[in-house]
Amino acid sequence: MRILLVGAGGVGGAFAAIAARRDFFEEIVVADYDLGRAERAAAQDSRYVAARIDASSAASVTALCHEHGITHVMNAVDPVFNMPVFEGAFAAGADYVDMAMSLSTPHPETPHTTTGVKLGDLQFAQESRWEEAGRLALVGMGVEPGLSDVFARYAADHLFSEIDELGTRDGANLVVTDDDGNEIFAPSFSMWTTIEECLNPPVIWERERGWFTTPPFSEPEVFDFPEGIGPVECVNVEHEEVLLMPRWVDCRRATFKYGLGEEFITILKALHTLGLDSTEKVRVKGVEVSPRDVVAAVLPDPATIGPRMTGKTCAGLWVTGRGTDGEPRSTYLHHVVDNEWSMAEYGHQCVVWQTAINPVIALELLATRVWHGAGVLGPEAFDAVPFLDLLTAYGSPWGIQELDPS
Amino acid sequence: MRILLVGAGGVGGAFAAIAARRDFFEEIVVADYDLGRAERAAAQDSRYVAARIDASSAASVTALCHEHGITHVMNAVDPVFNMPVFEGAFAAGADYVDMAMSLSTPHPETPHTTTGVKLGDLQFAQESRWEEAGRLALVGMGVEPGLSDVFARYAADHLFSEIDELGTRDGANLVVTDDDGNEIFAPSFSMWTTIEECLNPPVIWERERGWFTTPPFSEPEVFDFPEGIGPVECVNVEHEEVLLMPRWVDCRRATFKYGLGEEFITILKALHTLGLDSTEKVRVKGVEVSPRDVVAAVLPDPATIGPRMTGKTCAGLWVTGRGTDGEPRSTYLHHVVDNEWSMAEYGHQCVVWQTAINPVIALELLATRVWHGAGVLGPEAFDAVPFLDLLTAYGSPWGIQELDPS
Repeated sequence: MRILLVGAGGVGGAFAAIAARRDFFEEIVVADYDLGRAERAAAQDSRYVAARIDASSAASVTALCHEHGITHVMNAVDPVFNMPVFEGAFAAGADYVDMAMSLSTPHPETPHTTTGVKLGDLQFAQESRWEEAGRLALVGMGVEPGLSDVFARYAADHLFSEIDELGTRDGANLVVTDDDGNEIFAPSFSMWTTIEECLNPPVIWERERGWFTTPPFSEPEVFDFPEGIGPVECVNVEHEEVLLMPRWVDCRRATFKYGLGEEFITILKALHTLGLDSTEKVRVKGVEVSPRDVVAAVLPDPATIGPRMTGKTCAGLWVTGRGTDGEPRSTYLHHVVDNEWSMAEYGHQCVVWQTAINPVIALELLATRVWHGAGVLGPEAFDAVPFLDLLTAYGSPWGIQELDPS
Repeated sequence: MRILLVGAGGVGGAFAAIAARRDFFEEIVVADYDLGRAERAAAQDSRYVAARIDASSAASVTALCHEHGITHVMNAVDPVFNMPVFEGAFAAGADYVDMAMSLSTPHPETPHTTTGVKLGDLQFAQESRWEEAGRLALVGMGVEPGLSDVFARYAADHLFSEIDELGTRDGANLVVTDDDGNEIFAPSFSMWTTIEECLNPPVIWERERGWFTTPPFSEPEVFDFPEGIGPVECVNVEHEEVLLMPRWVDCRRATFKYGLGEEFITILKALHTLGLDSTEKVRVKGVEVSPRDVVAAVLPDPATIGPRMTGKTCAGLWVTGRGTDGEPRSTYLHHVVDNEWSMAEYGHQCVVWQTAINPVIALELLATRVWHGAGVLGPEAFDAVPFLDLLTAYGSPWGIQELDPS
């Protein structure tokens, strides 16, 4: 297996650090628009080479694939570049893995009730082409989407006879402090992307209605996260799981709720009220800037906050329905990473590290032919057991928590 | 009386429109950094001439005073320029009126308990100079500060034998809509200045403690405003009344609470949490901008929202203590302006119109020698009755509401 890693940012850098400890591949070309960043990430393993890439150009992706005899393209750039990377891989005859799907466009008239172009629609539109060519695009293979989808497959195959809801629930108790030890507001993930996903209309799937949307921040709910994280206010957010799970796993309803917490929700609403979420440039005292870029610029860079962060992050899937014994069951399958551990062990903060480990495992399963297939497939299209076993073998076990089904 | 009006923005423009109907002056020089704006405001009256001025330069103010034989300088620019306009007037031997006092600087170590440089300190430091020269600087002569301070004098002279608290309370039920009739977030006053005054530590005066500060947004209270405005959440805000009233009116406590409403408070807190209130420039994709300027730039210009605004604004003073009969008394003296009326009658939105009418009245009282004095004086240093009578004569009556003193 010869991998082209597109993007050496937070998640790409953590991917390189995790893969360096495994022996399932021969070479990884670490490629970034910023060659220096690619070189720094590539320096840690003799099987790595650095390259410059323009992820907005499918031809640039294809050319690099040909140059290095790439078998698998690992997309670790912003999802705005998904389509050129996806198409560049196909043109090169390589398989493809990403951690987020092609972007959505809200419905022009009724954005808060009806879907427009959905997450992944542009990729699924090319499904037959990939299948006919015998090539695999494994989409949404991070932690969420990704591990959450693996949990859905596992729940359907081993824990439930009938599934009511597949509810992805994400929460954390991360705290970032400044040099004086005072708590500061510093999101652990790209603020630009967080605004994008949180202010887009959330999507829900129901067996009778299919996919539909709601206004942002709908259906607030306090979810009690395990391993000491505790209760966090969660709201509906547009996310790939809702688009992926119902395609392969039988259920009545699929949702995604993000534990943004009250303060973050309030801040996102305020930014939206003021129009500071806008990406259109405004004129300010002689210069032109996009307000959303200004918001991102005043906050600390998420890639740099690891050493000043404490706490744990939890990704998981809350499944309700009937167990294999036919009795009502409510189960939360989850994966928790402590920032202190990921910083000490890998030098990467827990949120990006937790995202990056999953595509490494998936590529190892594809390299060893434990997973194989053709077409545009989500993680739930494959057997969950070898994936979850490997997650534990990598030193980062997952967990199951039974909840009161009443 | 020959007046130099410095600033032809929202309040300056309304000042010119109100004064045009009065005959107490011979000439007004309408001066602005933007000569076109000065010319537009000056076009409405044959006694007006337009001029260009640099309000950051005391010499520029003095020169214009000499050129036109100015007797009174009316300061209607941002308070950041108060000191050059104040000093330029003194150097020219003119009297001076403003609507906000010189700016404060928070205490470097304990900003939320102790005052640093207080509002007006820089002006009061020159008090003896003005007094010895026999010149008058009438400071804080807008609506708040201004009319509120006149109310304090009136309450002390005519309604109360003993005053417990002089509590300025400002509230409104203004709503701004877009072209489709949807309510939008559009502050009726400069967002830059609103951030400045709301995020500075609020100041309180008590007879035993003197002046002290609290954290922003302290002591939230719902005040029920008259004439259909109704209950609005008010919080402590740094404001000139607290610095002015105790100098001339005997009381136990002086406060200022602004009816920002819950949404506005939440938005200001969010801006502060993110650091978007900062005036220090940040680098954003190759250009440098001040985040606070960006926030102001994305919002509608307050000067333009008049036609799309409905509702009323209320300025007033809540006085508690003992009435002239010695019995407990609680009285709200207030002045309400309906935006529909001010737009129809003057073509100016109610918030700037309500600010501008008060210095016109004050100058008329100075022109007719009903008010006279020397030094740096607040509105409460003068007899309130002729002022309030003239307010009613201008067609904009004030009101008194008795509250339950228990």
